Amino acid sequence: MEENYTLLRKHIEEIIALTDEEWIFVSQFFKYKKLKKHQFLVQKDEAVPAEFWIISGLTKAYAIDSNGKEHILQFALEEYWTTDFNAFQNQIPATIFIDCIEDSEFFSLRLEDLNMLCAEVPKMSNFFRIKSHYGYIALQQRILSLLTETAEERYNNLIKKLPKLIQRVPKKMLAAYLGVTRETLSRLKA
Amino acid sequence: MEENYTLLRKHIEEIIALTDEEWIFVSQFFKYKKLKKHQFLVQKDEAVPAEFWIISGLTKAYAIDSNGKEHILQFALEEYWTTDFNAFQNQIPATIFIDCIEDSEFFSLRLEDLNMLCAEVPKMSNFFRIKSHYGYIALQQRILSLLTETAEERYNNLIKKLPKLIQRVPKKMLAAYLGVTRETLSRLKA
Repeated sequence: MEENYTLLRKHIEEIIALTDEEWIFVSQFFKYKKLKKHQFLVQKDEAVPAEFWIISGLTKAYAIDSNGKEHILQFALEEYWTTDFNAFQNQIPATIFIDCIEDSEFFSLRLEDLNMLCAEVPKMSNFFRIKSHYGYIALQQRILSLLTETAEERYNNLIKKLPKLIQRVPKKMLAAYLGVTRETLSRLKA
Repeated sequence: MEENYTLLRKHIEEIIALTDEEWIFVSQFFKYKKLKKHQFLVQKDEAVPAEFWIISGLTKAYAIDSNGKEHILQFALEEYWTTDFNAFQNQIPATIFIDCIEDSEFFSLRLEDLNMLCAEVPKMSNFFRIKSHYGYIALQQRILSLLTETAEERYNNLIKKLPKLIQRVPKKMLAAYLGVTRETLSRLKA
């Protein structure tokens, strides 16, 4: 357990420096959580009290359209943050699902604790501001990719960006993330 | 000019409260800028020293694909923040263009000033954290919309979300934002 907290501290200190005293204060808000493959972190229509930092494992965030088809919004692996951010921030029921593709371990952080943390340790507010900014940038690039790139370009960029992911995720899910059919993906992988 | 700063203060105070002394300190970092229709706020391959808050007017952020086709990432109108956030945050050349659809007025905020502001007035860090969070949520919903919705659903949602925009933006641009052809859009509007 101790080493999980060490990982989290290292992750935070990539952006801001914390004294040992600050870290002791900060770390108490992060609660450890473990889920098996196929278990849910977030379920549609339910409350989303926390956001999650992934210690180990892999999750997918997805929506199901009116035809029952799954569309993947995000794959999150080690050191990623995930939740239904809209539901979390606005304390409304979830509109997406997040489940585990592998057995996974997390730290969860509740909204009231996040707010208290940012008020008490302003550096943490800076940390989350910059993280959120990077998340925004990544999503902007995903939108551009969806608007401008061919299926082949999207697949090649994903390999470049997340080479590990390709080996850990079934083809069907990669297709649902890239917004292409499984047949197109098989052709690209060949 | 005074009233523009009052608008900005009101915008910031929707999220955090500032004393008059804090506001005097904060406001000095925001520089007024005015551009005519068709002028550029951000140009591809150039440096992006600032982010922009729109006092009045309307801008569009877009990429041009390898076939010369324009794809619109964001429309930004009154009280929106806009820039090439990737280029801005990482101080690399822009990969998109942002130009004015109408004569527009802005406040610009440079990266070094943003960072100083957040360090000196931690509440401002909270402000930008929460703003960035909302931006992230909006982009996530746009991705879901691109993955799951039909052209008609996307158009109807845009009308609901930004009714004013529809009247101010040519059909061709709306189509480039929605990722549909102009013919499809004309059919939807009919």
